[in-house]
Amino acid sequence: MARNRKADKPLVQEYSLRPIGIIHSPFKNIQGVPIQPVAGQGIEGIVSVASEFADGLKDLEGFSHIILIYYFHLSKGYRLKVKPFLDKTERGVFATRAPKRPNPIGISIVKLKKIQKNQLYVENIDIIDGTPLLDIKPYVPKFDLIRTKSIGWLGSKVDRATMVKSDKRFK
Amino acid sequence: MARNRKADKPLVQEYSLRPIGIIHSPFKNIQGVPIQPVAGQGIEGIVSVASEFADGLKDLEGFSHIILIYYFHLSKGYRLKVKPFLDKTERGVFATRAPKRPNPIGISIVKLKKIQKNQLYVENIDIIDGTPLLDIKPYVPKFDLIRTKSIGWLGSKVDRATMVKSDKRFK
Repeated sequence: MARNRKADKPLVQEYSLRPIGIIHSPFKNIQGVPIQPVAGQGIEGIVSVASEFADGLKDLEGFSHIILIYYFHLSKGYRLKVKPFLDKTERGVFATRAPKRPNPIGISIVKLKKIQKNQLYVENIDIIDGTPLLDIKPYVPKFDLIRTKSIGWLGSKVDRATMVKSDKRFK
Repeated sequence: MARNRKADKPLVQEYSLRPIGIIHSPFKNIQGVPIQPVAGQGIEGIVSVASEFADGLKDLEGFSHIILIYYFHLSKGYRLKVKPFLDKTERGVFATRAPKRPNPIGISIVKLKKIQKNQLYVENIDIIDGTPLLDIKPYVPKFDLIRTKSIGWLGSKVDRATMVKSDKRFK
């Protein structure tokens, strides 16, 4: 299998993404946002998909949960080591869900309540109001539900995720 | 909460992403690829992270599963209605995991076996060799494991996912 050698070529390429919609939530600024959907239980939001993409929403309503893929538009630049909200120690950014990533892509699994035209009414949201939406995928337990207990540094800390809110550290 | 009105403004913006590495797998072309990691059980791959980002891998090895976020580089253009590998009926693209999406971003949850320098040895891979990697996140059951049975059109079809392989339809 090819290794490093081949890795260099396509890395010069850039890919351009255009938002397909906007995520609306009660969280108007970067502080005080739940750090994961599990901490945003019951909090409602509206995902407004641009009308040109509305046909792509067909059949989505049958799914109780969806994966929102979005761009952390308020996060400027990136760091390879970050101090996550749940820890006091610096961790490699890829071992965290922090927003200051080389490609600032976020994913959240939210509950889909209903769809009206191009508006998705969702619950359990942990996303800042105005966040650009890149993609929507159905959540499928057969694909996405993995039973694992090895969660590295998060092991003793993950239960605090429901209580901790964001601060300004990743601005 | 703001609706459509506000959705128009940021949609003109484009975001540029640069791969952080390359995913290597035994799948050399678009046909015959498992359509989900659940169908790629035991199949090994190597995720080669560019050395400039290697520091971001610190602490990742403690996680048994990771989420790979990547760019479907072989998928040209998009369709809002697609006939998924698991169905004979056209579905809205956002209700499927098909690659021909407005923003062709893929996610796969794979098993992390070991890390050597900037090379991640993974298992259960369903990704074509040479695919540009955009991001890596740790898989955290507390965040990512949702027990749901409502999976819309996939309900009666999802069990076939372990048997079906890709064909050329999304080239």
